[in-house]
Amino acid sequence: MARHGTLLLLVGLLLAVSGPAAGETERASEEAAQLLLPRPLVLELPTEESCVGEGGAEEETELRCASWRMAGEANNLAPWTAVPEECAPHVRRYLTGPAYRSDLELVAREASAYARAAAATATAAEHGDSAAIDAWVFDVDETLLSNLPYYAQHGYGLELFDHREFDKWVERGEAPAIPSSLTLYREVRDLGFKTFLLTGRSEGHEGVTVDNLRREGFHEWDKLILRAPADKKKTATDYKSEKRKEIEAEGYKILGNSGDQWSDLLGYSLSARSFKLPNPMYYIP
Amino acid sequence: MARHGTLLLLVGLLLAVSGPAAGETERASEEAAQLLLPRPLVLELPTEESCVGEGGAEEETELRCASWRMAGEANNLAPWTAVPEECAPHVRRYLTGPAYRSDLELVAREASAYARAAAATATAAEHGDSAAIDAWVFDVDETLLSNLPYYAQHGYGLELFDHREFDKWVERGEAPAIPSSLTLYREVRDLGFKTFLLTGRSEGHEGVTVDNLRREGFHEWDKLILRAPADKKKTATDYKSEKRKEIEAEGYKILGNSGDQWSDLLGYSLSARSFKLPNPMYYIP
Repeated sequence: MARHGTLLLLVGLLLAVSGPAAGETERASEEAAQLLLPRPLVLELPTEESCVGEGGAEEETELRCASWRMAGEANNLAPWTAVPEECAPHVRRYLTGPAYRSDLELVAREASAYARAAAATATAAEHGDSAAIDAWVFDVDETLLSNLPYYAQHGYGLELFDHREFDKWVERGEAPAIPSSLTLYREVRDLGFKTFLLTGRSEGHEGVTVDNLRREGFHEWDKLILRAPADKKKTATDYKSEKRKEIEAEGYKILGNSGDQWSDLLGYSLSARSFKLPNPMYYIP
Repeated sequence: MARHGTLLLLVGLLLAVSGPAAGETERASEEAAQLLLPRPLVLELPTEESCVGEGGAEEETELRCASWRMAGEANNLAPWTAVPEECAPHVRRYLTGPAYRSDLELVAREASAYARAAAATATAAEHGDSAAIDAWVFDVDETLLSNLPYYAQHGYGLELFDHREFDKWVERGEAPAIPSSLTLYREVRDLGFKTFLLTGRSEGHEGVTVDNLRREGFHEWDKLILRAPADKKKTATDYKSEKRKEIEAEGYKILGNSGDQWSDLLGYSLSARSFKLPNPMYYIP
């Protein structure tokens, strides 16, 4: 690969010469404009392929969108309602290319390593007087099951969320498993953790959710918790915190929590450790 | 840029043909090995330049290292002690290229937008009975000041942290300001927030820290809090939580908190909103 690296380096240098510090003043005025707005606006439309080190407007957009995605994962963005239009190609490339899978796999590996360590510690602690039962909480959408086939038809997060359209998709019960999550799920079960599936889906979707999960390889769980009518108006953070508190009150100790939204993981009755799966498509408060 | 894009696309296609799905079986055994270890091990050494879409072993390493960096920013990694060796070139490229600056700028912009909104709300609330004074907490190292010149001499996080060597660097008082943080800092002050500088540096470094901050444009603050001898053995999370609690007890309401470590932001007496600046070089528990 060294040969190819040299070739690309040469191409990169040529491109760098063609427009090295372009957009510095543009950037300053963009920044000023963005300070006054809740999120970045459309500034330029990038072409299909882009490559780090390329230089110019496309690279600027790529950089900004990578920063936007990173900021979302680090919970730095204010509640956001849709992917910034200039970042739609970036988000689509990320989700359909190898990077999304790689990110999912790495988070699952970290969770798995922690689960093994926590299980070993828990076994050692059994000789003590702790009677708590170890538990792991999993979110469902974009955590165990993927709605990527739906979002592929709806701009990968570029379109505003349409509850009725999404519900139709849920009712089909065809969401595929996220492979690395299925592996983690089985491992966590094999290690003896009780598993709680805590989803923002409403109770009306219980049947199809159970069928979908089973068809995709999630055969057993200790409890599947869906939103009751009384939970409808709560934020996901409040609803999920309340449910975690109930789980604790039933004598479980939540050692792990996997979710693609910060609202799966924050609030109160927090898990000993939380794992944030990537999701640049939507934000649930 | 369309011309350049086509050229790169052609190069990319040539490279893609040379090794499309290589490393699938490698990946499986790597994964198995990594499950048993606290963090990824050295697997292959990438060359200098690499480009998304290139294919082959270099792309695999690039993907894994981008995932590792993302996982760190999302607080998914267990406490880690050094950058994985295979990711040292990736981390160096990130820090010395435009991506680190872009990430820093975006986080500062989000913080700035929030500060303006929070200040406007606070002004409106003054007509109520709330007597709390709005405050913002800033970490110092890798948040207001950059130690990149030091880490450039120490493998950008690849070397294990050397307290004595780092202290010598601190004593020189030459850490440059992070430009986007300086802009944010001035804006937050101008908006009327009281600012607390809460650093893990020890009290022995107070003089040089004050000089360094002033020389770099941070002229005023309400309190600079450094680690007292009694704080030495505390984790940063505990030490910083205690200090935030003291700030609250003095009648301040912490509306914003900027830091490059999760231990700057988590624990208790949390800020209304926190901003995690990127740092793939080191982890402080």
